[in-house]
Amino acid sequence: MAKYALNPLEFQCLRLSLGLDETKAAEVLKCSVEELQQWELGQQPIPELAEKKLLEIDDTIEMQVLNTCDSIEAMFKKEPKRRLAFVVYPTQALYTQYNPEFISLLPVTELYNTAAWRIKKECKLVLEVEIGLVPLDVDSYKAFREQAGLGESRESRAKWAASQL
Amino acid sequence: MAKYALNPLEFQCLRLSLGLDETKAAEVLKCSVEELQQWELGQQPIPELAEKKLLEIDDTIEMQVLNTCDSIEAMFKKEPKRRLAFVVYPTQALYTQYNPEFISLLPVTELYNTAAWRIKKECKLVLEVEIGLVPLDVDSYKAFREQAGLGESRESRAKWAASQL
Repeated sequence: MAKYALNPLEFQCLRLSLGLDETKAAEVLKCSVEELQQWELGQQPIPELAEKKLLEIDDTIEMQVLNTCDSIEAMFKKEPKRRLAFVVYPTQALYTQYNPEFISLLPVTELYNTAAWRIKKECKLVLEVEIGLVPLDVDSYKAFREQAGLGESRESRAKWAASQL
Repeated sequence: MAKYALNPLEFQCLRLSLGLDETKAAEVLKCSVEELQQWELGQQPIPELAEKKLLEIDDTIEMQVLNTCDSIEAMFKKEPKRRLAFVVYPTQALYTQYNPEFISLLPVTELYNTAAWRIKKECKLVLEVEIGLVPLDVDSYKAFREQAGLGESRESRAKWAASQL
């Protein structure tokens, strides 16, 4: 084991901090729930790749938090607002369909939610901006697009979400 | 509902960010798992007190992260180290017995773990100090105290934990 590798309790803390239950973590790590449980109980050594994967995801999320907060700060210099809507995806199918650019970095929608939550928390603390996390409602979104004559795009989703606050 | 109250998804993100599964969250919020599920599915309005409780716990943890990192920074000015041990409690019984001063703020040991994990993460990032989270092993701790002629105290626990790194 590497000198500073995570012990079983730390590995579990990391998994939980990412908002992953055992089933979702097993999906992300491509292992069985039983294997994961054995790692967290210290009955089997934690594979280096599993630890690396979760640490990378945590880094990815932290980077996204920093970048998004910076963008929001820059945006709000031109156009001051105190509220903002952020689209999240209530199912894996919707996440995969509408937000595929994140799949390789944050493979399950729960991880995207975790990123969104941390962004919400940080923006409130640092920028005093309130972000609402709005789960995509396909019917409502389609009706909104029709009425406004908009195509499907990230911008259209953001506009729809803002209308839901 | 207050203007900026959390919606069901945000409430769930908050709960997960605290490292609480449904059972533990129900214990902390003194509700049933079924009630909690209904709140998170949007089938029942989230009681203001439940939201307040989890937000307060999150604030408590963030404050503890700040204070602990400050203390560690101050301590390391005199005595530079790169590694540090932090005792955590593998069961609720041990947490209650050995660490009762936190019970009112962070009622379950999982919340203490979450605080410890965030402290570990922050100290690594900001101070480049590696903190190891060491679950209390009562037999090993007692043998250590006997050998070193130490009474039970927070300091003794810290010394034992340091010997485990």
